[in-house]
Amino acid sequence: MRNKIILVLIIFAVVSLARVASAEVDREKLLKDPGVYATFAVFKVGDQWSQMDKEARASGVADVKKVFQKHADKVTVDTYLLRGLSEKADFFFRVHSTEILDNQNFLVDFMGTTFGKALKNTDTFNGITKALNYVPKFPEDVKAELKTPPPQGSPYVVVVPVRKDADWWLMSQDTRTALMKEHADATLVYLKTVKRKLYHSSGLDDLDFITYFETAKLDDFNNLVTALLQVKENHHNKQFGEPTLLGSIRPLDEVLEILSR
Amino acid sequence: MRNKIILVLIIFAVVSLARVASAEVDREKLLKDPGVYATFAVFKVGDQWSQMDKEARASGVADVKKVFQKHADKVTVDTYLLRGLSEKADFFFRVHSTEILDNQNFLVDFMGTTFGKALKNTDTFNGITKALNYVPKFPEDVKAELKTPPPQGSPYVVVVPVRKDADWWLMSQDTRTALMKEHADATLVYLKTVKRKLYHSSGLDDLDFITYFETAKLDDFNNLVTALLQVKENHHNKQFGEPTLLGSIRPLDEVLEILSR
Amino acid sequence: MRNKIILVLIIFAVVSLARVASAEVDREKLLKDPGVYATFAVFKVGDQWSQMDKEARASGVADVKKVFQKHADKVTVDTYLLRGLSEKADFFFRVHSTEILDNQNFLVDFMGTTFGKALKNTDTFNGITKALNYVPKFPEDVKAELKTPPPQGSPYVVVVPVRKDADWWLMSQDTRTALMKEHADATLVYLKTVKRKLYHSSGLDDLDFITYFETAKLDDFNNLVTALLQVKENHHNKQFGEPTLLGSIRPLDEVLEILSR
Amino acid sequence: MRNKIILVLIIFAVVSLARVASAEVDREKLLKDPGVYATFAVFKVGDQWSQMDKEARASGVADVKKVFQKHADKVTVDTYLLRGLSEKADFFFRVHSTEILDNQNFLVDFMGTTFGKALKNTDTFNGITKALNYVPKFPEDVKAELKTPPPQGSPYVVVVPVRKDADWWLMSQDTRTALMKEHADATLVYLKTVKRKLYHSSGLDDLDFITYFETAKLDDFNNLVTALLQVKENHHNKQFGEPTLLGSIRPLDEVLEILSR
Amino acid sequence: MRNKIILVLIIFAVVSLARVASAEVDREKLLKDPGVYATFAVFKVGDQWSQMDKEARASGVADVKKVFQKHADKVTVDTYLLRGLSEKADFFFRVHSTEILDNQNFLVDFMGTTFGKALKNTDTFNGITKALNYVPKFPEDVKAELKTPPPQGSPYVVVVPVRKDADWWLMSQDTRTALMKEHADATLVYLKTVKRKLYHSSGLDDLDFITYFETAKLDDFNNLVTALLQVKENHHNKQFGEPTLLGSIRPLDEVLEILSR
Repeated sequence: MRNKIILVLIIFAVVSLARVASAEVDREKLLKDPGVYATFAVFKVGDQWSQMDKEARASGVADVKKVFQKHADKVTVDTYLLRGLSEKADFFFRVHSTEILDNQNFLVDFMGTTFGKALKNTDTFNGITKALNYVPKFPEDVKAELKTPPPQGSPYVVVVPVRKDADWWLMSQDTRTALMKEHADATLVYLKTVKRKLYHSSGLDDLDFITYFETAKLDDFNNLVTALLQVKENHHNKQFGEPTLLGSIRPLDEVLEILSR
Repeated sequence: MRNKIILVLIIFAVVSLARVASAEVDREKLLKDPGVYATFAVFKVGDQWSQMDKEARASGVADVKKVFQKHADKVTVDTYLLRGLSEKADFFFRVHSTEILDNQNFLVDFMGTTFGKALKNTDTFNGITKALNYVPKFPEDVKAELKTPPPQGSPYVVVVPVRKDADWWLMSQDTRTALMKEHADATLVYLKTVKRKLYHSSGLDDLDFITYFETAKLDDFNNLVTALLQVKENHHNKQFGEPTLLGSIRPLDEVLEILSR
Repeated sequence: MRNKIILVLIIFAVVSLARVASAEVDREKLLKDPGVYATFAVFKVGDQWSQMDKEARASGVADVKKVFQKHADKVTVDTYLLRGLSEKADFFFRVHSTEILDNQNFLVDFMGTTFGKALKNTDTFNGITKALNYVPKFPEDVKAELKTPPPQGSPYVVVVPVRKDADWWLMSQDTRTALMKEHADATLVYLKTVKRKLYHSSGLDDLDFITYFETAKLDDFNNLVTALLQVKENHHNKQFGEPTLLGSIRPLDEVLEILSR
Repeated sequence: MRNKIILVLIIFAVVSLARVASAEVDREKLLKDPGVYATFAVFKVGDQWSQMDKEARASGVADVKKVFQKHADKVTVDTYLLRGLSEKADFFFRVHSTEILDNQNFLVDFMGTTFGKALKNTDTFNGITKALNYVPKFPEDVKAELKTPPPQGSPYVVVVPVRKDADWWLMSQDTRTALMKEHADATLVYLKTVKRKLYHSSGLDDLDFITYFETAKLDDFNNLVTALLQVKENHHNKQFGEPTLLGSIRPLDEVLEILSR
Repeated sequence: MRNKIILVLIIFAVVSLARVASAEVDREKLLKDPGVYATFAVFKVGDQWSQMDKEARASGVADVKKVFQKHADKVTVDTYLLRGLSEKADFFFRVHSTEILDNQNFLVDFMGTTFGKALKNTDTFNGITKALNYVPKFPEDVKAELKTPPPQGSPYVVVVPVRKDADWWLMSQDTRTALMKEHADATLVYLKTVKRKLYHSSGLDDLDFITYFETAKLDDFNNLVTALLQVKENHHNKQFGEPTLLGSIRPLDEVLEILSR
């Protein structure tokens, strides 16, 4: 009899896992497709968290994981640790989905946990992915080079929000393509060590673009940004960073463990 | 005897409802007329709210609903959830009336409830609706197109406060009309998916305009704003957003339920 | 015997009242004369106030009234409610006297009450009244029109701090007079519905002017400011508002009652 | 026997006083010499101070006086009340010494008292006094006028931090001397009513100069600043004030008494 | 028997010390090499620290020292006291390592101590050291002078973050070298009294450079900065300071002792 119960439980667990698995959103697709909405939600831990006792914090952490599971069929979430490298916040999430309401619902649930209630949401950036604007008009050799596979498994993340000036937007498309070609040329040498992703934000936030980078070589990244400061497009950056978010890519468990000590 | 009492109570309830109904301000008219005052009141929930016990929060929420009923003969109030999509605040109200003192009295009562006392009022925008300024001089076909019925029942809201530079205001009316015609042309293709409303704020706030949008298609809205960045009027936006408020349109009950978890 | 005591008390009360009356500063004169110092003291109520019990708040309010009486021979104080129409603060005082030390002493005493200690002083503007600068050189008809009696008993107040750029101050006096004539012309039509008062602040604050308005017609005020945006003087406003304070004129008792609920 | 003890105590007290006196830094010299370091330390009283009981506050005040005595051989400290005339802070100290480490050590001790721990240090300006830069090249009559003895015993203080633009610093010394001559001419008429002192801050703070004023006539000071706005040097003030600190000069005891009520 | 135990303990202690010593990172090399990452972490002590009892603070301080020891094989840390000379913070650390993840891990551990939890991290600057950019093209005599050995054991530190404008970055390398030669010339006379170090920050922070100085003569430093304001490079400083951090160089123990009083 007891064995039967155990068997039933095992089957139930396997089926549940399978359902979770099948319910999970297609992460690879979300990270590649145009028309995907991203919300970067940046948080700082408030004083009340460290004043709770250990058990309350452990239970708070467990609730966070449940929220992640609950929304796993709609959103995919990447987690990053800022503490130590930025005074602005302790960590941030990058949330992707095909409908930004799903990002909101996930974050509302997260902010409703005991841990979430102890946080200050210091920044939120919203953006949408799009098909490439300028690349189709680039020369074939540049296009080919831009297909260099990006590095995998990098430990560092940098997020740089960008806002362009009115002169930029009022240029002819051709002039802008020429400037973006100059921009692309400056980046080619870093394609092997710096992975990039672009989000469009005009109207969804007080930004025009969210530029996202992963790298293992921050010295290369410093050279890359210095190279971009030296192309004419730089005259049209009304905002570049402010805040620049520099952190390390870490799994949710590690972020939660560090912030619950 | 008992039946009589029940009957009296029912009649009383019906009469009360009728009185409430008759006392309600004409919402449709307020949302269409010129000379109507709007106050956008933006709030963030403070730490003390989540530290109250469940009953105190339930009673606080009940008081909020009473304040809404008490002022229903003077003001009409729309409610929006920002949490998750904006770090600046958790929710906002759009309050309309024909006398801004009624907006103030409603908000003073709201901020005097237990829930209201736990809030931080992070932003307030005041504006007034007016008859259209430039449209009367537009060509007939543009005028006709501008009458496209806006979408109904959209889930998303965006509010973008705007301030123009001195050069804008010192242009001749004709030059400004030409620039606004260019602006209108850029928006025509989005009339079916983005609903708009304009408020004038000069002197009532540190703004010239509050631009208000509802949509189900944020990708269209992103394209609309990008198109507006590419017309010459953009040279004269001293402030565009800052803050841009992106949120979802939700009934009062849902907003209160989410924030009282 | 009892009657005698009552009589004595009545006489004492009458005499006290008379003394208070005779001790009161000449309000009319302070509001008209040049060389009078004004301090606009803007406050937001802190969380600790609503956490006090009812009696402590009642006693705090009584102390505030005593401070007003104590300084009535030196300063005259107008009171305004901002809550609901401005996120920046809940109320402000406009304090006038012939010696700014009297404004400070009044405010120091006010801020030393239980109520005062629960406040955050979010802004303070200091200014001095002066004889008219440009009007003497205006044409006679403009001068005559500028004597239109202002409206009385208006419910709304707007305060707009202003700072001019270096070009403004380095113009010849004649050029500035011409620009101020253009400014005055734009305001003539609103003299009947908008009451104005000007304070000079250079060196007393990070401002050049405090412009103060009372009106019953905020639509007229919006039109007035829009008209002022369209005169050339607008090119020289380094700061106009920021913060614009929009509120309602309410007696001290009403302000205190609203904030003590 | 008792008399002897009293005598010994008196002698001890006199000797102690004498030692304190001899140990006191030469205030007149510090206020006149070049090469003296000044630290302007600006503070706002936090909520916890008024929540302490009366005795704790009295003991806190006594500790502050001991800190002043302890450092009297190294620094001289002037005290000022801002509350009521500035929202930015409640009071500030002007600390002078020949070695800025002595300013730091005094302030560290002050901030370590119970009163100091209840304060928020809202601003700190550091500067150094220098021999006059431009005056040596001025005409003899201007030089003579500049020797007008300043007013003594003025009740008001104004501190205006200043930062110049790159164009200012890149002018030839002669051009700058000509502009400073124009500046000096504008101030001559106010020498009798406004006392001035200048500190150089480049590299010691985010400022180029701290300008310090004492006066009994704030109307004259307003006219003086208005006159300075009208000389060409004003084109090169990147920062003028922000914050302007307006307050009254009050002895330490009065400042402490007011803030301990 | 007892002697044996003591002997064993001594040997163990010596071996441990040796291991710590051998585990210590090569400080001299880190302070000289290119490709080293520096994190400037700036902190202000929060109210809760002074409200803890003495023992809790002593234990918090002991934990801080353990964190320093634990990371001594990866990072080298310099400590500075700002309190009294800057309102922005109380102290800062300059952390060096060859991998910025080590800086983060050290700071995460530090911020996880009882003391760390009571701090507000007000600013963080990240940078990387590089080989000299412009010096190789300078004339030989300037190169020789630039080798003047810097002063040792200075009591003061100044940190000035710098951001250049787009015009600077878009100049030809030769033009920039000429401007940097002019810059270097202005500094030669101060090489004996002011020690300097440069970090590159573009992309790692919202800065281009962190300039770091040690000196015993702040009057010389004020003259040095004034001289730099007078070279053409100054036209291209979009940010210079803001914040400028002025403090004194003090060992960890002294910083902790001062902040634990």
